[in-house]
Amino acid sequence: MIAWELAGAGVEQLRKVERGDPEPGPGQILVRVRAVSLNHRDLSLARRGVEEPIIPASDGAGEVLAIGPGVKAWRPGDRVVANFFQTWIGGAWHPRHAASALGGSVDGMLAELLVVEEGAVVAIPDGWSFEEAATLPCAGVTAWNALFGAVPLRPGELVVVQGTGGVSVFALQLAAAAGAEVAVTSSSDEKLAVVAGMGASVGVNYRTTPNWAAAIRSGAGRGADHVVEVTGQLDASLEVVASNGSIAVVGTTLGTEAPVVEIHPGVILQKGATIRGIYVGSTAMLADLIQAMVTSDIRPVIDRTFAFDETPQAYRAMMSAGHIGKIVIAA
Amino acid sequence: MIAWELAGAGVEQLRKVERGDPEPGPGQILVRVRAVSLNHRDLSLARRGVEEPIIPASDGAGEVLAIGPGVKAWRPGDRVVANFFQTWIGGAWHPRHAASALGGSVDGMLAELLVVEEGAVVAIPDGWSFEEAATLPCAGVTAWNALFGAVPLRPGELVVVQGTGGVSVFALQLAAAAGAEVAVTSSSDEKLAVVAGMGASVGVNYRTTPNWAAAIRSGAGRGADHVVEVTGQLDASLEVVASNGSIAVVGTTLGTEAPVVEIHPGVILQKGATIRGIYVGSTAMLADLIQAMVTSDIRPVIDRTFAFDETPQAYRAMMSAGHIGKIVIAA
Amino acid sequence: MIAWELAGAGVEQLRKVERGDPEPGPGQILVRVRAVSLNHRDLSLARRGVEEPIIPASDGAGEVLAIGPGVKAWRPGDRVVANFFQTWIGGAWHPRHAASALGGSVDGMLAELLVVEEGAVVAIPDGWSFEEAATLPCAGVTAWNALFGAVPLRPGELVVVQGTGGVSVFALQLAAAAGAEVAVTSSSDEKLAVVAGMGASVGVNYRTTPNWAAAIRSGAGRGADHVVEVTGQLDASLEVVASNGSIAVVGTTLGTEAPVVEIHPGVILQKGATIRGIYVGSTAMLADLIQAMVTSDIRPVIDRTFAFDETPQAYRAMMSAGHIGKIVIAA
Amino acid sequence: MIAWELAGAGVEQLRKVERGDPEPGPGQILVRVRAVSLNHRDLSLARRGVEEPIIPASDGAGEVLAIGPGVKAWRPGDRVVANFFQTWIGGAWHPRHAASALGGSVDGMLAELLVVEEGAVVAIPDGWSFEEAATLPCAGVTAWNALFGAVPLRPGELVVVQGTGGVSVFALQLAAAAGAEVAVTSSSDEKLAVVAGMGASVGVNYRTTPNWAAAIRSGAGRGADHVVEVTGQLDASLEVVASNGSIAVVGTTLGTEAPVVEIHPGVILQKGATIRGIYVGSTAMLADLIQAMVTSDIRPVIDRTFAFDETPQAYRAMMSAGHIGKIVIAA
Repeated sequence: MIAWELAGAGVEQLRKVERGDPEPGPGQILVRVRAVSLNHRDLSLARRGVEEPIIPASDGAGEVLAIGPGVKAWRPGDRVVANFFQTWIGGAWHPRHAASALGGSVDGMLAELLVVEEGAVVAIPDGWSFEEAATLPCAGVTAWNALFGAVPLRPGELVVVQGTGGVSVFALQLAAAAGAEVAVTSSSDEKLAVVAGMGASVGVNYRTTPNWAAAIRSGAGRGADHVVEVTGQLDASLEVVASNGSIAVVGTTLGTEAPVVEIHPGVILQKGATIRGIYVGSTAMLADLIQAMVTSDIRPVIDRTFAFDETPQAYRAMMSAGHIGKIVIAA
Repeated sequence: MIAWELAGAGVEQLRKVERGDPEPGPGQILVRVRAVSLNHRDLSLARRGVEEPIIPASDGAGEVLAIGPGVKAWRPGDRVVANFFQTWIGGAWHPRHAASALGGSVDGMLAELLVVEEGAVVAIPDGWSFEEAATLPCAGVTAWNALFGAVPLRPGELVVVQGTGGVSVFALQLAAAAGAEVAVTSSSDEKLAVVAGMGASVGVNYRTTPNWAAAIRSGAGRGADHVVEVTGQLDASLEVVASNGSIAVVGTTLGTEAPVVEIHPGVILQKGATIRGIYVGSTAMLADLIQAMVTSDIRPVIDRTFAFDETPQAYRAMMSAGHIGKIVIAA
Repeated sequence: MIAWELAGAGVEQLRKVERGDPEPGPGQILVRVRAVSLNHRDLSLARRGVEEPIIPASDGAGEVLAIGPGVKAWRPGDRVVANFFQTWIGGAWHPRHAASALGGSVDGMLAELLVVEEGAVVAIPDGWSFEEAATLPCAGVTAWNALFGAVPLRPGELVVVQGTGGVSVFALQLAAAAGAEVAVTSSSDEKLAVVAGMGASVGVNYRTTPNWAAAIRSGAGRGADHVVEVTGQLDASLEVVASNGSIAVVGTTLGTEAPVVEIHPGVILQKGATIRGIYVGSTAMLADLIQAMVTSDIRPVIDRTFAFDETPQAYRAMMSAGHIGKIVIAA
Repeated sequence: MIAWELAGAGVEQLRKVERGDPEPGPGQILVRVRAVSLNHRDLSLARRGVEEPIIPASDGAGEVLAIGPGVKAWRPGDRVVANFFQTWIGGAWHPRHAASALGGSVDGMLAELLVVEEGAVVAIPDGWSFEEAATLPCAGVTAWNALFGAVPLRPGELVVVQGTGGVSVFALQLAAAAGAEVAVTSSSDEKLAVVAGMGASVGVNYRTTPNWAAAIRSGAGRGADHVVEVTGQLDASLEVVASNGSIAVVGTTLGTEAPVVEIHPGVILQKGATIRGIYVGSTAMLADLIQAMVTSDIRPVIDRTFAFDETPQAYRAMMSAGHIGKIVIAA
């Protein structure tokens, strides 16, 4: 099979290679990858580099080509999307799942073929494209976990999302579908106009209004019940959050090597605020996310789709940060 | 002031009387009642009768006429709606609150004037009529508590509501606004057509389809994550509920003297189901409900409005059960 | 290998047979069973009978003899106890797990050898016997799930357990270790004296005091925050439960074919009570249970241990209901 | 009446004054204060100073002398302890409660007489002294809220408490009574020996072992499920916390003016950790705390009791930080 390998540090270290075709073992399925979406973690990996060559990319969708012994849930021809952590089926996060992260701990999606666990994929809804499904595992599930993974948000609450990247746009769509009010920050008035059309009732340009926390409080007339924190600005998030509110630390943009941030413990306690770390999510959350999107007829927002051979260009488009929603590679 | 008194058993025991004007004590406010809505509990009280004359009706809204010593949150002219349990401000239910139930334990809303606790009323949103606000305390808060009071529903879940009375219509509106799929039962195809327009995706006529639980499972392709149980048919609710699903026992229709029902404990444990009793709710829930309705631009569904002098007719319209949503009395 | 097979209905249909030795597949381990404990569900199965012969018994512990391909967590010689539902690793209950129930859906523990999933066993604590460990999967995990599976009990709350069978004794021990007050019902003053020594502060003989619910309320001076309901007397449990209290419907004694019970919906709603079905639990709960018992230095209560050849006598001892705690078979 | 007033900045600004006797209004009770306990917040207030003279001290207990109009729950002679936030009866924290903080927003406990709200006091258990009861409102309720206020801890979990001040000793006692394993840090081996006798299984001297987080992980063989964070060392707390663990930011020692701390967002998300601010608690929590202590027969740990006239000496003893548990003033 043909695959993209990352063999060092930098996007220029992506190279197309020929690899042997994988085969499904017991309880596994072989998938013909048809679409891949990129996340900031893919950029971080490329920037940081690898010691051993790896097939990168965490998110993808495709068609079942073959099933291993004992597999009952799937058959060839089924359209599936794979969960990021292959061993995290449901329940609480456990660090052992880290070893099963696609496109990081193990080979990922930028290949013609991939073997995945039968319990770690979810059916793609009728009418959805592979490209749409491929956007869900990291960005969509992270947004779902942030808003509904612990105590689910309730209608009428105020949700703040930062920027218009993948996680933030999913969080905006899901929060609006769940009856919440949504405020968005961005560096661009054009992007704010776009997200206003997607249900955001408050938009603040953090370039022209550096104190975005105060501007959101003023625009919405109240503090935020939930902040989906993707930027590492925890102190501003603590300012915008309401009493008893919660901040989901997602850190997609920052990666797990996010720089140290400063916070005021006194603010946390005076507000009775909660800060919660979100490390993507389980296959059960991916299934719940899909059910919610189907029920509310929400579709993923795809900024641009590249061809498989244009993979390096897709990485560079992601780096330029001009997009709204997801960047996808059709495979 | 003029008031309606219930002085025995039966709607014919409602009579218009002259009473002395009440005065607000410390921490209390005097309200000029402007609208009242009826609930099944008002019918139960009239049917059961009272030993001492009482001003009935639990739900109402009006204008602040005067404030007692120490009141800071309100001033004359404010438009407010009162919570059913005057002492249940927030937190968990406590039986001591039962003594503060308007139109039952203490005099209620069918009067020109009423004294209420300053912490037990909520501001009416701009643009809402008194009639709309008057529908919220029992029916709206019960629906809110059923869907969001314990573990809030999440978008994509399936909610079953029974019939088209006050609680059920609020539950339908709130669940749809929260991104849930909603199934409704009714005795009338005409009513099912109306609620389809309000967001119900599955409707079952329980007259023509007595096994409505199976019909909903078949129509939705899955079991219910939440059932708002207003009819006392717990066994059918246990059939329609999905694994890990929950049934909110509301019993508005039935009152607290609801007849014994039979259930299969084996089904509860095999499904891991939860049955939860809902006894209206707190002032904090009333405020949350209003915030949610304002955010999603939902308005209460009023079937018909009667004049203050037509109060007995309003009771009889409620008894005939031909309505969708709420029956209101303008005061 | 030698095994006990159930080949019809009735304890007399238990017969010792020779079967081929099983072998572990990928991700599986082969266990030399060293101890088995009995549960009411084993009696129900024997009473109901089977169409195809099956190796019965759901609970057991033993030593790892061999591991299948890919198994990393275990090695030969490890001492392990197996979870009842082999596929329920963690997270919420799902009906698909029912197909993996040991000694019911699949062959169980009354054999020299058993193949189990590597993720569905937990290490036996140092110093514990195989007999002690064998008591945990059904009775211990059910008690754990009832008290800590949803909202964990808090110290100072009142817990009611019914009788002195396996689940009830575990619930008594765990509740007392968690700082709760515990009330116990029994048909025997002798048994009540024994459980008083295990931490029960209130004991009621339901033979001599049929209205045990009122007697517990009077003895403890309050209603119960948690009832571990194993008898199907939901109406009495609703009487003893406090406002906002919860009733865990366990039904070990009754099985999933428990007879219909009658309840008053009005009581559920007036108390804001919760009824929750408990269907044993996950491997994660088994691990948590063991950690709790080790921390508090609680050991399982074993009433009597039988030899492997005395298996029918063990069943009959279980039927006579004279025991406190668990009946075990050393294998 | 006689009272201590703080009339500037510094302990030397405490002076004994004569004030008019207060009288209970409607819904209020007049209490003859019999014991007061000190907290770090009292030191912070004295250090920071006040613009208007205030009667300081947040925690106290006494005897009901008289009741205001409408009070039904109490009568003269009842022994009561007052909640810190007089308006926070139950439910979620709300910033409006800040205005009712005894010994800060309003006059506090260092007086012969105090008027409090009838719903904001709890009965002192039989057999408890006023001194013991006086220790509960800030330190005890904070520890309770940290461990049981959101998701209650479960037996077998590991709890880390820092130091041997009031909150930490309560947290140690409550966690041990709830079946948790407890690890304690201290600057003194003598204090560690004392807390070992109170149920701590791991003790680390942070003077001789600066990396106390690693030492606890090594001593307990696992990470902490709960950290009661009173020192502002959030980064060390994030190191000691286990996956899915939670850190309660209490900040008694630090006050709401606690200095900025640095944290690594990547650690929060990789662990799925939760950080939660705790601002003392409600009257309902105070009642739950007392019920738990009575059930487990735990008594508050009092380091030393001073006479009313020795109030400045009590403040100075508190500042010297040599105590274990609470410093009390008998009034």
